[in-house]
Amino acid sequence: MDKQTLIQTHNRIKPFIHKTPVLTSRLLNEKAGCNLFFKCENFQKLGAFKMRGASNAILSLSEEERQRGVVTHSSGNFAQAVSLAAQRLGVKAYIVMPENAPQIKKDGVKTYNGEIIECESTLEAREATAFKIRDEKGASFLHPSNQDEVIYGNSTAAIELLEKQPNLDIILTPVGGGGLIAGTALAAHFFSEKCKVIGGEPAVADDAYRSLISGKIETNGNFHTIADGLRTTLGERNFPIIQKYVDKIIRVEENDIITAMQLIWERMKIIIEPSSAVAFAAVLKNKEEFKNKNVGIILSGGNVDITNLPF
Amino acid sequence: MDKQTLIQTHNRIKPFIHKTPVLTSRLLNEKAGCNLFFKCENFQKLGAFKMRGASNAILSLSEEERQRGVVTHSSGNFAQAVSLAAQRLGVKAYIVMPENAPQIKKDGVKTYNGEIIECESTLEAREATAFKIRDEKGASFLHPSNQDEVIYGNSTAAIELLEKQPNLDIILTPVGGGGLIAGTALAAHFFSEKCKVIGGEPAVADDAYRSLISGKIETNGNFHTIADGLRTTLGERNFPIIQKYVDKIIRVEENDIITAMQLIWERMKIIIEPSSAVAFAAVLKNKEEFKNKNVGIILSGGNVDITNLPF
Repeated sequence: MDKQTLIQTHNRIKPFIHKTPVLTSRLLNEKAGCNLFFKCENFQKLGAFKMRGASNAILSLSEEERQRGVVTHSSGNFAQAVSLAAQRLGVKAYIVMPENAPQIKKDGVKTYNGEIIECESTLEAREATAFKIRDEKGASFLHPSNQDEVIYGNSTAAIELLEKQPNLDIILTPVGGGGLIAGTALAAHFFSEKCKVIGGEPAVADDAYRSLISGKIETNGNFHTIADGLRTTLGERNFPIIQKYVDKIIRVEENDIITAMQLIWERMKIIIEPSSAVAFAAVLKNKEEFKNKNVGIILSGGNVDITNLPF
Repeated sequence: MDKQTLIQTHNRIKPFIHKTPVLTSRLLNEKAGCNLFFKCENFQKLGAFKMRGASNAILSLSEEERQRGVVTHSSGNFAQAVSLAAQRLGVKAYIVMPENAPQIKKDGVKTYNGEIIECESTLEAREATAFKIRDEKGASFLHPSNQDEVIYGNSTAAIELLEKQPNLDIILTPVGGGGLIAGTALAAHFFSEKCKVIGGEPAVADDAYRSLISGKIETNGNFHTIADGLRTTLGERNFPIIQKYVDKIIRVEENDIITAMQLIWERMKIIIEPSSAVAFAAVLKNKEEFKNKNVGIILSGGNVDITNLPF
């Protein structure tokens, strides 16, 4: 891993992604007591940063591999991102989804000609089904967060943010499967002198927080968090990066997440999903730590059911 | 009225407003069958285009007039816009509001040191109270839509849009009091060769539509529209401009407005108020008319109670 790899990654995916804007808000700066720079991946293609990693993973395949297609299991943004990126590149995409996945998610995949393979809703069934397709079709398995090409692709959001705001003291991201924060940490390490990376994590799903303490990958119990994109655990590819380059993880309560989300909606007039509010919630909870600093926040996505809001 | 006046207006207010972005959406273009360019006044200071007209009206006063203050009656975005612009310029602002105005609106005015004077909720009481303050204090009365300086200030949103997209065939705005569409029509007349201006209006409050047919200012009966910013009628300053320079008014049903609003929220991940959705609803309703055209839409504002949505 070196800086050159990330630069090549960025150049490779540029034609397939939006360079999303960086927004600021005087009112939110006052509220938080620091200078906030929001990298708006909610405006990314398909409404989430996942498009970056998915594009890079497929673009990194050989011509022969592309001909055999790709397979992933996801019921969320990554499934659509893989479908769209694959369609753009003329690659067949097999998407393993739990049979009880919402119709709207299935429709999203179908829009981009992804082939849905249904299975039971357990992680075991999803993995088994995906690996079976990998073995039968020779398709390349793409992991939503625990794969080098996906992590490198994700790093490009922070690279763009640092290009625009080179003076950042800290970048915060939400932590779910660990793919976004690992990529962000690599970007900060290679593209800035001093910028730290901090994660925000729901207290009820604080596996990353505990993993950094115990030094091994911890899992979550049976929990519910409104930040539904963060219900996943770290993996053996991203965890070492997080251990090495991430400063800390801040845990936030469910109410903090909802308050932060509502503030961004009302003050910035943009739609972000609950997972995206977790990083901002971490700033609001620890104001002293961020006081007067230049703080980047990666708003990871904006895919939320607006007919069913928590406020 | 000439082009020079509008250029001077724009230069005058530039330090007091945001140059808001112009956003596009591939998906909405496909849905509408034309190329849409959304001028995002929901990202304007205070979340609405009203900041443009309010700033210009106060900046156009003499030093002596400024010392006597300004007065307006409004329970909406204009009250806050006048309060903020006045505060920035060290001018006293008297804001006449109905006693039953929502506390959140009153708080908004107080944030910017506007002095609230309460009265009964009828238009007559509001006007009488405002004129009394004008006469007693010597304050200059500012009208939210029916005043030349306000109309000129409003024109700057379309000027910026045309600077960025000189090839527009049409610009659409919502029509309420007529101040936005009149300003937009002046901008299109002086800053483009061929760009037409069309208004969108709720069918249940179609006073502008009827006014253009009858040739005199029509009023609305007792009605309710979700586009609460559009419950006002034209005035003698903006109506002649609208007659001369506006191509037509398209009426839309309440359901059309809600559908258009939801589409913009879900696809563009931005928050707009119902009034802002009216112009886009007019495009969706008359697709043939706009087919393959370059269509600008002024999203007038984003101030909406997100805890009480129509979907």
